[in-house]
Amino acid sequence: MGSVFGRLFRIATWGESHGPSVGVVIDGCPPRLPMDVDAIQHQLDRRRPGQSRITTQRKESETVEVLSGVFEGKTLGTPIALLVRNEDPRSGAYKDFQHIYRPSHADFTYDAKYGFRTWQGGGRASARETVGRVAAGAVAEQVLAGEWGVEIVAYVSRIHEIAAHKIPETISRETVDENIVRCPDSEAAERMIERIDRARRDGESVGGVIECVVRNAPVGLGNPVFDRLDADLAKAMLSIPATKGFEIGSGFEGSMLEGSAHNDPFVMQDGKPSTIRNYSGGTQGGISNGQEIRFRVAFKPTATISKEQETISDRGESVTLAAKGRHDPCVVPRAVPIVEAMTALVLADHALLQRGQCGHVPTLDDFPWLDGDA
Amino acid sequence: MGSVFGRLFRIATWGESHGPSVGVVIDGCPPRLPMDVDAIQHQLDRRRPGQSRITTQRKESETVEVLSGVFEGKTLGTPIALLVRNEDPRSGAYKDFQHIYRPSHADFTYDAKYGFRTWQGGGRASARETVGRVAAGAVAEQVLAGEWGVEIVAYVSRIHEIAAHKIPETISRETVDENIVRCPDSEAAERMIERIDRARRDGESVGGVIECVVRNAPVGLGNPVFDRLDADLAKAMLSIPATKGFEIGSGFEGSMLEGSAHNDPFVMQDGKPSTIRNYSGGTQGGISNGQEIRFRVAFKPTATISKEQETISDRGESVTLAAKGRHDPCVVPRAVPIVEAMTALVLADHALLQRGQCGHVPTLDDFPWLDGDA
Amino acid sequence: MGSVFGRLFRIATWGESHGPSVGVVIDGCPPRLPMDVDAIQHQLDRRRPGQSRITTQRKESETVEVLSGVFEGKTLGTPIALLVRNEDPRSGAYKDFQHIYRPSHADFTYDAKYGFRTWQGGGRASARETVGRVAAGAVAEQVLAGEWGVEIVAYVSRIHEIAAHKIPETISRETVDENIVRCPDSEAAERMIERIDRARRDGESVGGVIECVVRNAPVGLGNPVFDRLDADLAKAMLSIPATKGFEIGSGFEGSMLEGSAHNDPFVMQDGKPSTIRNYSGGTQGGISNGQEIRFRVAFKPTATISKEQETISDRGESVTLAAKGRHDPCVVPRAVPIVEAMTALVLADHALLQRGQCGHVPTLDDFPWLDGDA
Amino acid sequence: MGSVFGRLFRIATWGESHGPSVGVVIDGCPPRLPMDVDAIQHQLDRRRPGQSRITTQRKESETVEVLSGVFEGKTLGTPIALLVRNEDPRSGAYKDFQHIYRPSHADFTYDAKYGFRTWQGGGRASARETVGRVAAGAVAEQVLAGEWGVEIVAYVSRIHEIAAHKIPETISRETVDENIVRCPDSEAAERMIERIDRARRDGESVGGVIECVVRNAPVGLGNPVFDRLDADLAKAMLSIPATKGFEIGSGFEGSMLEGSAHNDPFVMQDGKPSTIRNYSGGTQGGISNGQEIRFRVAFKPTATISKEQETISDRGESVTLAAKGRHDPCVVPRAVPIVEAMTALVLADHALLQRGQCGHVPTLDDFPWLDGDA
Repeated sequence: MGSVFGRLFRIATWGESHGPSVGVVIDGCPPRLPMDVDAIQHQLDRRRPGQSRITTQRKESETVEVLSGVFEGKTLGTPIALLVRNEDPRSGAYKDFQHIYRPSHADFTYDAKYGFRTWQGGGRASARETVGRVAAGAVAEQVLAGEWGVEIVAYVSRIHEIAAHKIPETISRETVDENIVRCPDSEAAERMIERIDRARRDGESVGGVIECVVRNAPVGLGNPVFDRLDADLAKAMLSIPATKGFEIGSGFEGSMLEGSAHNDPFVMQDGKPSTIRNYSGGTQGGISNGQEIRFRVAFKPTATISKEQETISDRGESVTLAAKGRHDPCVVPRAVPIVEAMTALVLADHALLQRGQCGHVPTLDDFPWLDGDA
Repeated sequence: MGSVFGRLFRIATWGESHGPSVGVVIDGCPPRLPMDVDAIQHQLDRRRPGQSRITTQRKESETVEVLSGVFEGKTLGTPIALLVRNEDPRSGAYKDFQHIYRPSHADFTYDAKYGFRTWQGGGRASARETVGRVAAGAVAEQVLAGEWGVEIVAYVSRIHEIAAHKIPETISRETVDENIVRCPDSEAAERMIERIDRARRDGESVGGVIECVVRNAPVGLGNPVFDRLDADLAKAMLSIPATKGFEIGSGFEGSMLEGSAHNDPFVMQDGKPSTIRNYSGGTQGGISNGQEIRFRVAFKPTATISKEQETISDRGESVTLAAKGRHDPCVVPRAVPIVEAMTALVLADHALLQRGQCGHVPTLDDFPWLDGDA
Repeated sequence: MGSVFGRLFRIATWGESHGPSVGVVIDGCPPRLPMDVDAIQHQLDRRRPGQSRITTQRKESETVEVLSGVFEGKTLGTPIALLVRNEDPRSGAYKDFQHIYRPSHADFTYDAKYGFRTWQGGGRASARETVGRVAAGAVAEQVLAGEWGVEIVAYVSRIHEIAAHKIPETISRETVDENIVRCPDSEAAERMIERIDRARRDGESVGGVIECVVRNAPVGLGNPVFDRLDADLAKAMLSIPATKGFEIGSGFEGSMLEGSAHNDPFVMQDGKPSTIRNYSGGTQGGISNGQEIRFRVAFKPTATISKEQETISDRGESVTLAAKGRHDPCVVPRAVPIVEAMTALVLADHALLQRGQCGHVPTLDDFPWLDGDA
Repeated sequence: MGSVFGRLFRIATWGESHGPSVGVVIDGCPPRLPMDVDAIQHQLDRRRPGQSRITTQRKESETVEVLSGVFEGKTLGTPIALLVRNEDPRSGAYKDFQHIYRPSHADFTYDAKYGFRTWQGGGRASARETVGRVAAGAVAEQVLAGEWGVEIVAYVSRIHEIAAHKIPETISRETVDENIVRCPDSEAAERMIERIDRARRDGESVGGVIECVVRNAPVGLGNPVFDRLDADLAKAMLSIPATKGFEIGSGFEGSMLEGSAHNDPFVMQDGKPSTIRNYSGGTQGGISNGQEIRFRVAFKPTATISKEQETISDRGESVTLAAKGRHDPCVVPRAVPIVEAMTALVLADHALLQRGQCGHVPTLDDFPWLDGDA
């Protein structure tokens, strides 16, 4: 249970970190979509380990193979299966921890839940499972871009205590990738990289925050009362390993404003309804309003560190642990494409749901609305 | 779409604020559960308007009626439908706003999505829809309490800029209800009440934060990779009207700690595995670990205020709005039972899923685990 | 579990035969649909007991009440709840059978499954639960008729051994209702009515077959490989109480033809693709092809009879049973609107799914298709 | 859409007949199950083409590869992906039919639905997609056999007009496989084989009927009102390519009996509740009653024949078609393991659902039931 996501644009992922492969099957992709496999590979490359000196050095080329659902370069409307083989498992490195519950890892909870787990790396709890998500998300993005011109850009807005301050309006994935920490404030980026380097040298790890912006989101996406767009984004983000928080628009700080200061009054701009500010973060009543969707995701410091830690074995004995595997001192930069992928999966699903129920995915150009005259 | 929640313990809610009724049907409740209708009514009473001077004065007795699924005081295992009639609609009060998009309300987005909306109050976007959730959540709590002794307590931890500081370990719903703002730090509570009173006098509104604690949660709840317990809690919370953020355990602040400080090492305590701190907030790898589950939810200031606001009509004309309806200057105290209800719904669903797939809902007493010997 | 049906046009029903009420909530109905409550009531009236001398004499006016989702006569796109109160329970009549497992009833299996059941009539296993289906189906029909001109007509094609032979092409619900057995072959209808009368006099019951025709079905409905249109129709029909079989197009007899005789060759007719015969029954590869959808459903003789029967109690003792409740000697005529309702629910769901994934619900007028040029 | 099946034991299949591969991912398999890959391969071998002279001569070794979810020979509880590569596509053979709508094939409906299709063989509409189902079904069988001793045996009971008459009570898969047509009545089997041979010589095809028996089914499986066990079996069977009908227990013929003759009275046998006959086919009220589950599935004659047929092109021109590909004159014998697989998938899903909601999967040994005393 739990490895299926979405309703109309629906995916099922599989794979453990040290098993034969990871992958995904997409059920419900619209037909006749030109499939850009390079774009999928590009997002996988942005996620993969070993891409820069601040990530784990596990080497994986992570070449995606299309197993089904595409014919003459276009989607058939039938399931698209995407496969990535695991290449450099070195699972032996984990043999020593076979009976140890690493602090803040999922070793204990997987044992509790299933009565059995693989001791080879994180197994299904490893961030390696996100390969399938990123691949599927890249397909979802092609649907969103092709049909509605949607653009999704995520970036690192904080590492540990170092926050970005100057984020240009015009950021794109290209500008985000101009430095290896994926923070568009280049001055802050430099300090972030140093901070991560220091964590590595110390045998430590650090966390941070990713911010995500969606431009040209269609209006009307989200299905109250439970499947609100913000609720589904929250779930999508908290499903990413190592996340501890989600906030949209004004978020936690917004609860410190008074109503009149927090409300986003509507105005007409270029003949289209707009708001004079965007504390709502692009959704009202759980439905997108056509403004930028903007949210933030908190990542804890990676649980795996080289420093010695006290903990217990699966027989309850006290043990001292010093991890030796290759690991990231900070997962946040590599999580940027994962946040983008999950965002795309949520939006594509909601766009198809909206088209299904209401027959129409509106944009701000459709204003004034039908107002019952249809 | 969007009004069904859960997979095994599954609910479907209905109702608009000024329509004939609100309600819920629960599909999948375990059979033979003694049904305590008073307990349902009690949670509804904690949610209902008019319960204290700091809430809206809309009067609704909100008496729940059991329409099906219970026989001789016990659940049949068949759908349980629960109905609450709307009694005091006074929808006329809203006639003036019929064509106005109130700032940060869902008027605009409902029009965009559906091409049609009721102008009577918030319609489906009104918090009145949460009646069905609270009723169903009270049933879920009975399942959780009866089978596993689970206890869920939520409370107000911040109103506007006033934060609670002294929260006793032993809080219960009774102690939470000792003041009308539902904050167990009585000194802070007093100032919170004043703050809300001032907002009312000013024609303003204020937001805040609710914290929720789950004690005796079974171990092993949560279905990675997408239906992680924390992810489903995040979705559940962000599906509540007026929420803008969710964090579990260390949350956003946790991303400012180093790994060795943030990790929760395991120790044996009374023969059971425990952790020496709980930055994890009770879940690791998306699965409950038997420690207290602890999370926070941010609520924005209510969108409805009496102060004049500029905005537009549904034809794009600039208009000035001054709301006259009865409304809450602060929804946070009334949202406490809603947070509890959604928590119960998520946990009950996951407990049944765990029992279904793995045949067993473990507790800390089951340690050491089977470890593949089964 | 099990009382939710559909994915986009999704319903949840509730209610036992002798509880307070039966009803349904529809989640996902398209907005702005003019809601014809009389049409719902009309189908309920065709289903209700006591409508003619060949049905049970249980009296129920079965007046439907709209609890939500409709405003100014039109659907809001939010959940539509429909309620029918139980009026004439007389549950006392069943007290004698409280501990008896009636042959071929669900008494035994409900006890086995839930460890508990209501002894008042059939409880949830009673055909009374179909009230919710019929109400929801009548809404689904309005969607189908309004958007695509779909027409669904079911009729009785066999009672016991008496088969209808002359079924005009032009049958409508009006012509079907010209006799109380709902068989458009008036000569056969007369004999069927006599057969049912005889069964009643004998304290017996009889079964039969319903045939259903769908005209103007959109093309392209059905989602292989599992949610084929024929598969979903089969499930929908076998979910109706007392059904034992389903066949579409040529059905069981079709397996006695050779391929060349069974295949339906395509021809152009009035500029549209058609087939020269319809052994396919309107679907090919699980997807509607624009021809008439045509299928048959087998109903067993009602389990409740007045004749004495040997069986056991819930303690394993041998007992003799003679039912005294009011019951139908033949449920088939009253099942006609139920078959229509379930058909409408399946088709409406698939039409919305098709619109969601593919953006378009095609008709035969759209031929020649895009063939990859889009 | 449409390639996901099940709720707790849930599968997603992928693959077209002439694409790179077919496969399945199983989400929700219980953990700690010893995985017998040979048993999976054995069922695939019973399904594969080229296994005998009465099947198509397309050669596929169809070796299954386990891509995830198994560790040290046991299931982890995480998704199990199973892959089979397509080896002998020869898609060129289909180039001639690229623009032709073959009679009673899915060419036309796939074009209508998706606006695009692969002309290489049947694509997703080919029975080749059932490889994933058979592989997943073999895993489901291991769950059912291991936990509850369930046994599923299907066999051919009719080919064209030749019906089996003498079916021993003790049939097993081994006895069923004693002849290549998989009919346990050896005399009838011989005539069936001759009939299929004749069809091949004539460039024709023939259909037939498969009967399936489930022994030791747990009691209490099935979730009324929609997800009745018989309804889910009906859907599962009608989702198999080339099926046109389903009947359980007495089926269509049962509707010709009177109630007293059709009812299955309960008796105690060896201290367990049993019925003196089994017209119910093992389910009452949509829930298994512990007796043998027994149902039949009708298969039409294969649409692909060598005989010339008139039809139209995708531009509406009349064309004459003579298929040259390798094809089965009769698919029924190869469909036996597919029927078994779908049965296993339905039963495993329902067993886990029952365990989830009710905490217990009862057997006849549990009688007398709790009857509200729990």
